[in-house]
Amino acid sequence: MDRDSAFYSIIDYTVDGPGTQQELVAVFSEIQERWVRFYPGYQSARFHVSTDGTRVYNIVRWASEADYRNFVDTSDSEGRMTAIRKALEGLSGKAEARMSGVPTYTVVREIGPGPQRVDA
Amino acid sequence: MDRDSAFYSIIDYTVDGPGTQQELVAVFSEIQERWVRFYPGYQSARFHVSTDGTRVYNIVRWASEADYRNFVDTSDSEGRMTAIRKALEGLSGKAEARMSGVPTYTVVREIGPGPQRVDA
Repeated sequence: MDRDSAFYSIIDYTVDGPGTQQELVAVFSEIQERWVRFYPGYQSARFHVSTDGTRVYNIVRWASEADYRNFVDTSDSEGRMTAIRKALEGLSGKAEARMSGVPTYTVVREIGPGPQRVDA
Repeated sequence: MDRDSAFYSIIDYTVDGPGTQQELVAVFSEIQERWVRFYPGYQSARFHVSTDGTRVYNIVRWASEADYRNFVDTSDSEGRMTAIRKALEGLSGKAEARMSGVPTYTVVREIGPGPQRVDA
């Protein structure tokens, strides 16, 4: 596969340890449940936590860019942002956003298993 | 699903525009082909590019942590690192690593589609 038609947003934080990592996953899971998961085309939010306890990536997958745009246009972004801010303030440790620019993504290439490429 | 048994490494760069973004995907794809994709348990490298042209995430998936450890222990890490350094030096634009700490991850939680949670 060289391209998929899904559309992603990636939420990316550094945290000060495994406890905060767990808390961040818990509060962002609740954000998905209360604010996101019921919109058409929502497929998943997958929480990737680093084995050293210092980072969390939440990768949210939509069926298409149109579904994501519909979510942005019709959802209560201000309410959601307030909920996220409150959730972050309620953490016992520190979490720092590492996003830069617009947090929307497409997957343009996938390299699957295969033989070693050895041409010069 | 609340947990999967796969093991991930996440390679994360900011870049100075869509051209560099494309180049970075091309050179890291070649790194996968020449140095990684033939090890047991390798499943995929998926290149997520931001729609604003400024960021690239490469999410590499292994069947298990043991497979990843075997790759690290038995592969030519020094050769691979040299190849990556040369690839980055050959870009026409700028790319800056955004990794922090150990770049290995597990997925600890997935929130699928469902009804809006409305409890207090």
